[in-house]
Amino acid sequence: MRADQQPRRRSVNLILLEPSEVSGTNVVTLSGPRAAHMLKVLRVTPGLQVRVGVLDGPRGIATVDGIRDEAVTLSCMFDVIAPARPPVDLLLATPRPKVMRRLWAQIAALGVGRIILTNAEKVERNYFDTHMLEPGTYRPLLIEGLQQARDTRMPSVSIYRRFKVLIEDELDQLVGPALRIVADPSAATPVTEIVRRSREPRILLAIGPEGGWNAFELDLLAAHGFQSAGMGPRTLRTDTACVALLAIGHSAIRAREISEGRVQTSD
Amino acid sequence: MRADQQPRRRSVNLILLEPSEVSGTNVVTLSGPRAAHMLKVLRVTPGLQVRVGVLDGPRGIATVDGIRDEAVTLSCMFDVIAPARPPVDLLLATPRPKVMRRLWAQIAALGVGRIILTNAEKVERNYFDTHMLEPGTYRPLLIEGLQQARDTRMPSVSIYRRFKVLIEDELDQLVGPALRIVADPSAATPVTEIVRRSREPRILLAIGPEGGWNAFELDLLAAHGFQSAGMGPRTLRTDTACVALLAIGHSAIRAREISEGRVQTSD
Repeated sequence: MRADQQPRRRSVNLILLEPSEVSGTNVVTLSGPRAAHMLKVLRVTPGLQVRVGVLDGPRGIATVDGIRDEAVTLSCMFDVIAPARPPVDLLLATPRPKVMRRLWAQIAALGVGRIILTNAEKVERNYFDTHMLEPGTYRPLLIEGLQQARDTRMPSVSIYRRFKVLIEDELDQLVGPALRIVADPSAATPVTEIVRRSREPRILLAIGPEGGWNAFELDLLAAHGFQSAGMGPRTLRTDTACVALLAIGHSAIRAREISEGRVQTSD
Repeated sequence: MRADQQPRRRSVNLILLEPSEVSGTNVVTLSGPRAAHMLKVLRVTPGLQVRVGVLDGPRGIATVDGIRDEAVTLSCMFDVIAPARPPVDLLLATPRPKVMRRLWAQIAALGVGRIILTNAEKVERNYFDTHMLEPGTYRPLLIEGLQQARDTRMPSVSIYRRFKVLIEDELDQLVGPALRIVADPSAATPVTEIVRRSREPRILLAIGPEGGWNAFELDLLAAHGFQSAGMGPRTLRTDTACVALLAIGHSAIRAREISEGRVQTSD
């Protein structure tokens, strides 16, 4: 078998439970994909521990109590508090379905509080008529990303077919106070610099379509508080740009916390 | 036709020419994929201009002189100097072929001077026996990334099956002086902070395998000048981590240039 034909299961870093599965009890019996993963990939046996988390709740450790008929019974202990919501939100011109498929899990792994997908002039109409934008499709991908990153905070997803309505009427309520940044290839100031100068705890990053925002869209974003940030002279694919910008956004927030003495860096 | 079944050609931002194609002449006739791209995606007609570049040479502008039998004749004008080599090199524990396939173009688009693929304990042996590591496979993907980013500098690629030999005997000559950083989930100091404290113009980023470097590998890297940098508490897939770290590395270098007053940010 050739290496590139060989399927390899990626080990999950945290098994996510629905709140309803652990309401009023710390013992849960899982069957289906999560049990199969524990048995076939993690190869759990009774007494072994796995990392668990409750969706939008705390993380914890679960001990395998028993295994029967391909179902795994776990006895869970949870942290007192849930992880904080990631301090970055994403406003993304809806990309091609193939690109969006690659992005869901990566976005959740990098960490966003809210994903807002929007229309724009250069977004093709049929990008909205796809199962990639249906919760049944993207929710498992978001969970995959959360499990990879050991997070429990499910990003909120909002989809807008009318850019102007979104920016003028909905955005303020949707995201609340945040430092608003739009990625703009013609801008010279980097994201890190804009974040460094601001005291706003949260940032909202806007990323345009493959062909860029048009002048009207950029003007509307500017009129609603978005500052233009550049990423240097290199033009990136939407998926690369999205991962790159989220990483830089998170990194800039941590750099600011360090410079303010709010985080220890000695290691 | 459903949106996600619809093939869509991505428009190339720069058409790369081999040095041999423009040696001693500024007029070049292209046939094959580049001509097809110009005719079918860019829909060029005589008199129109396209961005061109010479591999490892300067960028320029080409005017379409003529179109005949699906071949396009271009008359080129080049810049005096070639783009600088990207100031970031990458030392990457060879990932699964499927992951490597996704990475080649993205790495080239983000910009690296050299890509060093290495073995590690948690790299599976058969990852090296794959056509994804053959120049015939990766070179077109690197060119795709360069064309996307409008760069001409082809990253050098080196592949090492022996980690110890690479680090102890080969690395110094291979990359020259550089700030050496290894991504380490247990480290608290972020990449940006390490870059900020250094005067070294180039950085070399080391990224481990999906299961992490082992203790011997981390010790050997530390003994050869690699400083550990964290990326926060989130565990990322290799491909996401790779894009994220390259983006953060470039961003950190630009932030340092700005703080040193070497770059204007007013826009």
